[in-house]
Amino acid sequence: MNSYAIAIHGGAGTISKDTITPEQELEYISGLKAALEAGEKVLKKHGSSTDAVEAAVMALENNILFNAGRGAVFTHEATHEMDAAIMEGAQLRAGAVSGVSNIKNPVQLARAIMDHSGSVLLAGEGANEFARKMNFKFEEDDYFFSQYRYDQLMKIRDTDVVKLDHSVSDSPNPPKRFGTVGAVALDLHGNLAAATSTGGLTNKRYGRIGDTPIIGAGTYANNKTCAISCTGVGEYYIRAVVGHDISCLMEYKGLSLEEACNELVHHKLMEMGGEGGLIGIDAKGNITMPFNSEGMYRGMKKKDGDFVVEIYA
Amino acid sequence: MNSYAIAIHGGAGTISKDTITPEQELEYISGLKAALEAGEKVLKKHGSSTDAVEAAVMALENNILFNAGRGAVFTHEATHEMDAAIMEGAQLRAGAVSGVSNIKNPVQLARAIMDHSGSVLLAGEGANEFARKMNFKFEEDDYFFSQYRYDQLMKIRDTDVVKLDHSVSDSPNPPKRFGTVGAVALDLHGNLAAATSTGGLTNKRYGRIGDTPIIGAGTYANNKTCAISCTGVGEYYIRAVVGHDISCLMEYKGLSLEEACNELVHHKLMEMGGEGGLIGIDAKGNITMPFNSEGMYRGMKKKDGDFVVEIYA
Repeated sequence: MNSYAIAIHGGAGTISKDTITPEQELEYISGLKAALEAGEKVLKKHGSSTDAVEAAVMALENNILFNAGRGAVFTHEATHEMDAAIMEGAQLRAGAVSGVSNIKNPVQLARAIMDHSGSVLLAGEGANEFARKMNFKFEEDDYFFSQYRYDQLMKIRDTDVVKLDHSVSDSPNPPKRFGTVGAVALDLHGNLAAATSTGGLTNKRYGRIGDTPIIGAGTYANNKTCAISCTGVGEYYIRAVVGHDISCLMEYKGLSLEEACNELVHHKLMEMGGEGGLIGIDAKGNITMPFNSEGMYRGMKKKDGDFVVEIYA
Repeated sequence: MNSYAIAIHGGAGTISKDTITPEQELEYISGLKAALEAGEKVLKKHGSSTDAVEAAVMALENNILFNAGRGAVFTHEATHEMDAAIMEGAQLRAGAVSGVSNIKNPVQLARAIMDHSGSVLLAGEGANEFARKMNFKFEEDDYFFSQYRYDQLMKIRDTDVVKLDHSVSDSPNPPKRFGTVGAVALDLHGNLAAATSTGGLTNKRYGRIGDTPIIGAGTYANNKTCAISCTGVGEYYIRAVVGHDISCLMEYKGLSLEEACNELVHHKLMEMGGEGGLIGIDAKGNITMPFNSEGMYRGMKKKDGDFVVEIYA
């Protein structure tokens, strides 16, 4: 008898009791639980892992607390440029989108690219054009506006800091947060899937693309091994081809999911200087959620288990 | 005593004696040899493999015969959108660019992104802005114009064919060519590097990005294993994470360069339906250049060997 399981994350970074108020903590926990519930609802009804990770990521995109969709941070030009990806483990099908604006749910667009475009990765204005052709829902700039994130941008916009992660305090060393959301799932049919979505970095410039929409780096799924969704300093995750490396360590070297994920998060990325975390699930429904930063918004739900939602180490 | 070696490709596809005139054949051979010479000149003087692959790819970008740089094909909008990437095996440093226009040598921009941007991948107008900041050489549209390629676009522009590779005949089943150029090299210091550059697909739309600028897919280098540059239907190469998979088959499963490259080109990609080829070099200077299409423009030069330039199977 097959089982199902789902895990999600809402970003990693300098997240500790000192940087979050009790009220914020409750809001984050409630947002993570709602996303898990949205995903589990699909899995319980024998739906696909693809539909489940899409539903979970959409819930996080629609929550202004997380840096994806509605809560996307501001670029240097005070716009929102969002990236997302989705991958299915059964046939290694994948879709991804980069640098789109005004799309309510970028992960849905990644899904449409996988299902209908004949391509894997579409970017920028061209991707927006594809979304219009597919009758996607667009939102006005207002929908994505938050005073808090706008203030974050204004604080650093005129500095040379082009790669700062969004901060939550006025301290000279503001907490780093790698704002990304993601989900991985195993469905009752035995299929794995992964999805990731992000608004990128506050004050990002030059059309920078991180690891989120890079298949094999921030997002990867393969029924033989695992499904992975990452959050962290994207450049390191691209160079280390994190998602696919975990899969290869399992397939070619015989490591378990946990061993392979720990090898990346606590050794390879650490040695390169890459901070962040990831969530992984294997074909048996084992889940691991390692990170080398102070905290990571994360949660999981297995078929016969309780909801698990955690923030700190 | 270390040795050096370099290999290059100028794209794969339906390339046979029937589709190329003897005059064209000589031009291609001459272009490939010039690129090998440009790369070898660097290696012979104890230069880095990074400089060598950049020089070789620039030579191919400057040659209107190849679909990269000057010879880039036309998009649906009759513009040129070019992609390129470069990676160093020593520290896994990488730079890549996607969807840039009017840049004479995209591979140089990928190199500048690696060396100076703090990012790995920049795209679109933002990447052009970074190039202006770095005082890059821009060319007018005229520089990239070729009547031959413009006619290719006009033939298919009003059809639903949004994913056709550039063709060379009027036959109902025009030959497919996966226009991409690339180079891999080992230098006298024992360092590997890879670089790839492309104009993409004729009539491409929606900001489609192929495997060329995706680190781990079309371009990858790791001193522990190999350097790889791919050419083919990019979507399959992204989904199979080709460059990094070859590296993992060598590192984790103990396959030789040739065995690992053959596994990808003749098995994994073939089973998915992915046509094309690649060039690979390992840390000992072994070179392999497999392809599953009819032909591939390719060549290699080792320290004490002759120039090898080939087109057909």
